[in-house]
Amino acid sequence: MSLTVVGSIAYDAVKTPFGERERMLGGAATHFALAASFFDEVRPVGPVGDDFDEESWRILRTRGTVTDDVELVEGGRTFFWKGEYSANLNQRETHVTDLNVFETFSPKLSQASQDADVLFLANIQPELQLNVREQCTKARFVAMDSMNLWINIAHQALREVIGTVDCLILNDEELEMLTEKPTLLQAAREVLSWGPTAVVAKLGKYGAALFTADDFFALPAYPLSEVIDPTGAGDTFAGGFVGYVAAHPGEALDHGLLARAMAYGTALASYNVEEFGTERVERLTAEEIQARVADLSRMTAFAADPVALRA
Amino acid sequence: MSLTVVGSIAYDAVKTPFGERERMLGGAATHFALAASFFDEVRPVGPVGDDFDEESWRILRTRGTVTDDVELVEGGRTFFWKGEYSANLNQRETHVTDLNVFETFSPKLSQASQDADVLFLANIQPELQLNVREQCTKARFVAMDSMNLWINIAHQALREVIGTVDCLILNDEELEMLTEKPTLLQAAREVLSWGPTAVVAKLGKYGAALFTADDFFALPAYPLSEVIDPTGAGDTFAGGFVGYVAAHPGEALDHGLLARAMAYGTALASYNVEEFGTERVERLTAEEIQARVADLSRMTAFAADPVALRA
Repeated sequence: MSLTVVGSIAYDAVKTPFGERERMLGGAATHFALAASFFDEVRPVGPVGDDFDEESWRILRTRGTVTDDVELVEGGRTFFWKGEYSANLNQRETHVTDLNVFETFSPKLSQASQDADVLFLANIQPELQLNVREQCTKARFVAMDSMNLWINIAHQALREVIGTVDCLILNDEELEMLTEKPTLLQAAREVLSWGPTAVVAKLGKYGAALFTADDFFALPAYPLSEVIDPTGAGDTFAGGFVGYVAAHPGEALDHGLLARAMAYGTALASYNVEEFGTERVERLTAEEIQARVADLSRMTAFAADPVALRA
Repeated sequence: MSLTVVGSIAYDAVKTPFGERERMLGGAATHFALAASFFDEVRPVGPVGDDFDEESWRILRTRGTVTDDVELVEGGRTFFWKGEYSANLNQRETHVTDLNVFETFSPKLSQASQDADVLFLANIQPELQLNVREQCTKARFVAMDSMNLWINIAHQALREVIGTVDCLILNDEELEMLTEKPTLLQAAREVLSWGPTAVVAKLGKYGAALFTADDFFALPAYPLSEVIDPTGAGDTFAGGFVGYVAAHPGEALDHGLLARAMAYGTALASYNVEEFGTERVERLTAEEIQARVADLSRMTAFAADPVALRA
């Protein structure tokens, strides 16, 4: 089995109240791959420039990730993003977005990447997502992310891709913006009517919620004493979530499976934000992930105890 | 057993995107009592003016609430609040706050109210909260609410009351403001070091989280297709939460009991916001509450399934 992801591979300059990094490996496909590599062989698809250094290739290949479809554009420069977070990390300001090699990117998938069992379309132009979606004809589960930019300037194309996937993973505010609905439940139901069988709302520091035709499931974020750098948390969540599905090829893609997948996404994301960029997840262990999944199970379970109520 | 609550009894004028009410019964003690009355005999303490009408007395007495300590101030007018919510209900603006009979309020508790087994200090001046706290010497569980106003203008008095209660129930942003800590976990731990054995962070549409010395527990808000009026949701939550504790006099006040109490608070609050003011909770049934508690248990449970992870 294998898991293909298309999305950005980038260098990030990040400043938070707790420190800064001038240039570190980042990008949606990178964070996704680092998390998903715990579950399956991952094949990222995306361009890099010839400034992409050996150390970055090494990190990208953590836990066996196959970089055959990472396209090295000679004479090009790798996507670069520079941003800064507010004191409470609730807001971030983008200072620089240099698309560089992404400006002319046209995804070319090897046969192995096209044959992926599971596919994740990270946040890129909806037209590119659709292009990749159409190349991966054998995928039994396809999930995607997006962002407010595409909701505003490429609404129709975005609607079209959403209609071809099994699961949309998006911030709650973006879901409400996308559907023009006043509550998350209405927004999720609207998206489910467009084709997907599942919608995951990312709630930032409040966790994530899962909507299917049958049911609802929600998990808080793992409680952390310190959050150092939220960059990549959403993609790390997606890597754990989609990776978990990829690791269960024989199972029905039902609400229960996706709920358990949410726990792995949440555990992975909690480690990601404890240090800058990929630093924590690079050296993360399976035991550490299992420990937080078990914690989350305990921290959300309660025994319904039907107390006698007064009338 | 009985449950005393001190706080505002008010008339509210509320406008939301879904409608408005010119003058309806409201106030923290009212919403708390309506919810808590499912669990125990409730005794609200607070002043009203002689504009307080028969219909309001009737609503306040729902499910046997005892109004002996609701002080009728002759020639006075009942506390009045007028506010308006933004399109997505995330923000609210206060247009009018007429303290009226609250300006000169000095809580006088009957023996029965002083003998309460459980006490809730709703959001009022910390000095009044402390006054009531000191009158109720037999309470085995005391919880309190507060607000940003008192954090700003009565910080020391607020700290003093907090040191005398078992549980602080506050919005997450207010907890961070109160303690000047950057994360909710740090804020909660700081409050626990001041005396309380439990802290409940109200997260609005994201639910609520419980912090004790031992552990952490979180519950999402009940997923609703429509939210009509959020006024009183926090006090209704508190009524369900504290009421549940009051209904379990023989049990240890441990993490498990408080977690189950959170589920009742969450279920009650979800009904409160479905209609204006007290309209929905007035005619709520025990069966409806139990149904949502059971839903919440299912919607948050997942079986940790230790998948084999790659190294």
